[in-house]
Amino acid sequence: MGPGCSSLAYGALQELGPFRVHSDGKTLFRNRYAWNNAANVLFLESPAGVGFSYTNTTSDLDKHGDRNTAADNYIFLVQWLERFPEFKGRDLYIAGESYAGHYVPQLAHTILRHHPTSFLNLKGILMGNAVINDETDLMGMYDFFESHALISEDSLVKLKNNCDLKTESASVMTEECAVVSDQIDMNTYYLDIYNIYAPLCLNSTLTRRPKRGTTIREFDPCSDHYVQAYLNRPEVQAALHANATKLPYEWEPCSSVIKKWNDSPTTVIPLIKELIGQGVRVWVFSGDTDGRIPVTSTKYSLKKMNLTAITAWHPWYLGGEVGGYTEEYKGKLTFATVRGAGHQVPSFQPKRSLSLFIHFLNDTPLPDTSRY
Amino acid sequence: MGPGCSSLAYGALQELGPFRVHSDGKTLFRNRYAWNNAANVLFLESPAGVGFSYTNTTSDLDKHGDRNTAADNYIFLVQWLERFPEFKGRDLYIAGESYAGHYVPQLAHTILRHHPTSFLNLKGILMGNAVINDETDLMGMYDFFESHALISEDSLVKLKNNCDLKTESASVMTEECAVVSDQIDMNTYYLDIYNIYAPLCLNSTLTRRPKRGTTIREFDPCSDHYVQAYLNRPEVQAALHANATKLPYEWEPCSSVIKKWNDSPTTVIPLIKELIGQGVRVWVFSGDTDGRIPVTSTKYSLKKMNLTAITAWHPWYLGGEVGGYTEEYKGKLTFATVRGAGHQVPSFQPKRSLSLFIHFLNDTPLPDTSRY
Repeated sequence: MGPGCSSLAYGALQELGPFRVHSDGKTLFRNRYAWNNAANVLFLESPAGVGFSYTNTTSDLDKHGDRNTAADNYIFLVQWLERFPEFKGRDLYIAGESYAGHYVPQLAHTILRHHPTSFLNLKGILMGNAVINDETDLMGMYDFFESHALISEDSLVKLKNNCDLKTESASVMTEECAVVSDQIDMNTYYLDIYNIYAPLCLNSTLTRRPKRGTTIREFDPCSDHYVQAYLNRPEVQAALHANATKLPYEWEPCSSVIKKWNDSPTTVIPLIKELIGQGVRVWVFSGDTDGRIPVTSTKYSLKKMNLTAITAWHPWYLGGEVGGYTEEYKGKLTFATVRGAGHQVPSFQPKRSLSLFIHFLNDTPLPDTSRY
Repeated sequence: MGPGCSSLAYGALQELGPFRVHSDGKTLFRNRYAWNNAANVLFLESPAGVGFSYTNTTSDLDKHGDRNTAADNYIFLVQWLERFPEFKGRDLYIAGESYAGHYVPQLAHTILRHHPTSFLNLKGILMGNAVINDETDLMGMYDFFESHALISEDSLVKLKNNCDLKTESASVMTEECAVVSDQIDMNTYYLDIYNIYAPLCLNSTLTRRPKRGTTIREFDPCSDHYVQAYLNRPEVQAALHANATKLPYEWEPCSSVIKKWNDSPTTVIPLIKELIGQGVRVWVFSGDTDGRIPVTSTKYSLKKMNLTAITAWHPWYLGGEVGGYTEEYKGKLTFATVRGAGHQVPSFQPKRSLSLFIHFLNDTPLPDTSRY
């Protein structure tokens, strides 16, 4: 999400963290598929201006971009290890989703550049529904819309003929491109594009008591609101030792104080290839009902990388069901889909996402036979 | 489903009927989105050999096909009206799914051929995830598999290059085609191809009491088994006045006594065009997560019909959410998808399917604006 979205808002409290927030905005319930069943997990709200991360120099907020985020994240990791030296030298993995398709390989790259002077023992990276390569990301999104019957073949053809999908720059948009873009926007406007089959949040009012029948298996589309209420509670902030400086703005899932983003390469493919070359384990996964950075986009981006497949595209299993599909490539890159998951994979398929995470950590292939 | 599947097993007791069977196989719960909220609904198990429909002449079971099914269905309707003359002249609609893509237009055609000597006042037909045109149905299925990341692009290309999708005849299958077909079968074998995102029925044992938390909103993948147990209970059969002749076989959701199907045209497109030409209202719908006769197949089949669109492909709404997408064509043909539904649309999206049914009956366009 983002840039500018918080990993507490999504990762920790709606996806893979140990707790989810009830509809009352003040109590929690357990996520028994939390990723810290398998590893120590750190969540980072970055860069300054996101969530509880802040700067004392307001003008810093206009200087943000991929470069200083990577630098800041690196400094955070090094200093965190100074503060908790018992973790020095432990295996380190970096995971993220969406715009973390930039953050994750960029941070990995920064770590490797400082190797071996730091105590950061980077083993692998894991990226879900990740922004990787603007052109294929965009093309894949529209192809996904068409193949999932959200837009017509006619609209898709018109779009491809009239729009410059390489730049997507409004300044060069033709009249014909504007018309078909509007049409496409209208067709997807009242849809949760982050999971095309999910319900919308139609009533975000907090309930007096936790909603009945709440379960980790069914994601509540209004969770964003519960988390926002929860993290703005003074006692929660005090318990987290957060917001000690009394920020003049509310905690928000996605930052509205960061208004400018100065650098964002159109592709991170060269970076990923470099990491593979240096022996870093790379797993890329994709919730297959996400329409924002859909599986199609990731497929196109991987194709651009010209990797050599060492297994055929095949199902992987969990509990006798298809968990998704996967393919492995030379150079320790694994691509896997998670069946029935949207953009925030662990929100929609917590059990499948934990299984994927464990296999990633253990560097073992996803199970390719059903138990039957 | 089928040929050979029962409309009691699916339509009545798992989809659009007033009751569903509990996991105990003996008690019922209400479907508040039953289609008989909007019309009188008759379910027909046809031809003889399907469900409780039978023949006293065993050799009849080898003579079945589309032609005698249409003839039998017509005779059923005429005689039913003789028995219940108060319904003579009422507006009549025929609806069905899957192989009913054959049954429905064929019965409609038979009715029109006898017009006006019968009292059958046929107004329209409604077909869901329907078998329409073998070649496009098959091509659409494989394209759907690929675009939904169940199979690789490579497999799809190999299939198209090596298999004769026009005939799909095993006798002409090349070695290369067999290899890629096997690969595709393996990739979808442990998947419910009738709803690619649905869970499988992993334990079909009946429960002593109705499963807790049963709701019309969440379809139980083991329902088939509950229905089978229910319809084989002697007291249920007695109450239905069914199986009075004591059939030597169990009631089954899909017939195993019909082993041969003698005639099945490769396309019903000419028939549908003829019906449109005669002013019959035709609505075609498609649950968009079905992989068996997917939305892609129906799109390709409609394209073959060379219709003139009178509206652009756009969302339709229910309760502030996208119910699906729709397009209307000259000549009273409407195509609509139902979002998040598999092959048996009312099983997975009962509310959306009832809304669609009501708009079909009323001949009103599906709502094209959200309430917001």
